Amino acid sequence: MGPHPAVAAIRLAVRRVLHDILNDHQTSRVHPGLQFSGARPDRPAERLPSPLVLVACSGGADSMALASALAFEAPKLGIRAGGVTVDHGLQPGSDLRADEVALRLRGLGLDPVESVAVTVGREGGPEAAARDARYAALDAAAERHGAAAVLLGHTRDDQAETVLLGLARGSGIRSLSGMAAVSGAGGRYRRPFLHLDRQTARKACMVQSLPVWDDPHNADPAYTRSRLRHEGLPALEKALGKGVVEALARTAQLSRDDADALDAWARQAEASVRDAAGLLECAKLYALPPAVRRRILRRAAIEAGAPAGALFARHIEEVDRLITGWRGQGAINLPGRVVAQRQGGRLVIRQG
Amino acid sequence: MGPHPAVAAIRLAVRRVLHDILNDHQTSRVHPGLQFSGARPDRPAERLPSPLVLVACSGGADSMALASALAFEAPKLGIRAGGVTVDHGLQPGSDLRADEVALRLRGLGLDPVESVAVTVGREGGPEAAARDARYAALDAAAERHGAAAVLLGHTRDDQAETVLLGLARGSGIRSLSGMAAVSGAGGRYRRPFLHLDRQTARKACMVQSLPVWDDPHNADPAYTRSRLRHEGLPALEKALGKGVVEALARTAQLSRDDADALDAWARQAEASVRDAAGLLECAKLYALPPAVRRRILRRAAIEAGAPAGALFARHIEEVDRLITGWRGQGAINLPGRVVAQRQGGRLVIRQG
Repeated sequence: MGPHPAVAAIRLAVRRVLHDILNDHQTSRVHPGLQFSGARPDRPAERLPSPLVLVACSGGADSMALASALAFEAPKLGIRAGGVTVDHGLQPGSDLRADEVALRLRGLGLDPVESVAVTVGREGGPEAAARDARYAALDAAAERHGAAAVLLGHTRDDQAETVLLGLARGSGIRSLSGMAAVSGAGGRYRRPFLHLDRQTARKACMVQSLPVWDDPHNADPAYTRSRLRHEGLPALEKALGKGVVEALARTAQLSRDDADALDAWARQAEASVRDAAGLLECAKLYALPPAVRRRILRRAAIEAGAPAGALFARHIEEVDRLITGWRGQGAINLPGRVVAQRQGGRLVIRQG
Repeated sequence: MGPHPAVAAIRLAVRRVLHDILNDHQTSRVHPGLQFSGARPDRPAERLPSPLVLVACSGGADSMALASALAFEAPKLGIRAGGVTVDHGLQPGSDLRADEVALRLRGLGLDPVESVAVTVGREGGPEAAARDARYAALDAAAERHGAAAVLLGHTRDDQAETVLLGLARGSGIRSLSGMAAVSGAGGRYRRPFLHLDRQTARKACMVQSLPVWDDPHNADPAYTRSRLRHEGLPALEKALGKGVVEALARTAQLSRDDADALDAWARQAEASVRDAAGLLECAKLYALPPAVRRRILRRAAIEAGAPAGALFARHIEEVDRLITGWRGQGAINLPGRVVAQRQGGRLVIRQG
């Protein structure tokens, strides 16, 4: 008799990602350019060390299920499996909680296991600040242990929530593309559960008798994501039908591919719309599709020093009107003291 | 003292669109190619007849506000203003209701005014069937009266609902692009209120003492759009903040531009991936960005006879795997008895 379907599903998802990591790992190790930096060109036949994969675990159902599947699958592929839990220090006793999660990870057979305490700042709001601190700690842990990858437990439900959060920004399809299956420097972060629903992860914990911890933040209506999870998304499902989460996740994938293609187009077109001095020619910009032109304008503004996060669709629209609705308007102020103006058929964007 | 701000807002929105219609109208009349079809090349200096613009009016607040603004603005621009109301015959007494709306439109000074009865079929569900019947009737009325344009009262709130309905399909950014400001054959349909909120239209009716009729369908939870309006969207606003409707409308515009650009790219790339016999070459398709490749595959399937409405993202993904994940898989069945298969490095898509 095989494992419970939920356990089979989480293991399959992890196995697939471990295979990818193994392929990438071997490719990078035998790549001559990379191997040369190892400074041992005289010993090319050396056996590769067994790679280490870490799981980032909060102790919640998603990441506990992920840890259990990693512990089960990694040894079969000759991969070492470890774990990191981050103590955000946001609740009394969070240090004890983190130690307990670390104990559970060791109990699953993971090694090394680390509990890392971080200090959460305030920048960008409580959720963004906690996320920044968490990823910095995970990056550091991955470096310290020389990990080939860090697995994250985000599910399809998390992805749907992320798409809706992006939708609320109204800043275009890049913000609808959610989380990537592979992200971070060198593709360090992997999300094996991005196509799995939260219920499956929870079920897998239950049938494996894994104790899970429900972060009270996840139910706290002070957090946007929590309100979305417990009120917004259920109401949307009630109105639109049960397939909403899946539709949102598929929208993320399609939007990501579309945004990538348009970014590539804009990068390529950008060279052709600059004059010999490197200035943007308005007539050539005018001839481009609006979607491509606005991407070039956005890139130019960021290059001139405008912070990407503060640059909204309405800023770019205003700059675009220097091209499409020219009636002698003055300079346009953008975030980061960047100024855009039209001069003699050229668009000049620079820090003022 | 000027008019109430809400009345000023609806009039400004209509005035802008009337200017556009007038520009298009004059351009098409003086365009030599088009004028020649008028078969009077010997009398080129003839005075243009005054164009007619119709408003489609249900008697609800949005379209009554639109009718009132059209009646006010059109004469100042030398435009004749008329109205059409459609009796869908879905409720007892709907014919009397339609006659009453027609009376109100005449009361605003519109002429001609018509009440048109239609028979609503069943295809695609009750909402789609009613919409199809309505547009067919409006098309016929526009032809009958030689109207230059038909104004529709869709607001920014309608647009936000349309984006969410598209999101629920999960079929990509084209379905997120909502309703166009200009649509239909020759740009017949215009939506002056697409950037105006529903509340402004309602307020404009109130301060002008225009009686409005609330269609009971709009509050009937049997309809998806109604559930979205009264439950889904308010819950989303509660979770994400008040700017959601505006963000959704902006998403529509950005998605539309992006989808247009990618469609243009796919049309252009399609020629370059066909061999001398007109067959799609797999190697060349492989080299394209996924977003462009999938659009070419979708176009090819539709051209072969697959009904666009029945062709989902998962169908195209499966065909795409013949290119990106080739392992000798067999023919793939698509809607409309269309079959896709890989043969000797070529992708063959045709009706079976």
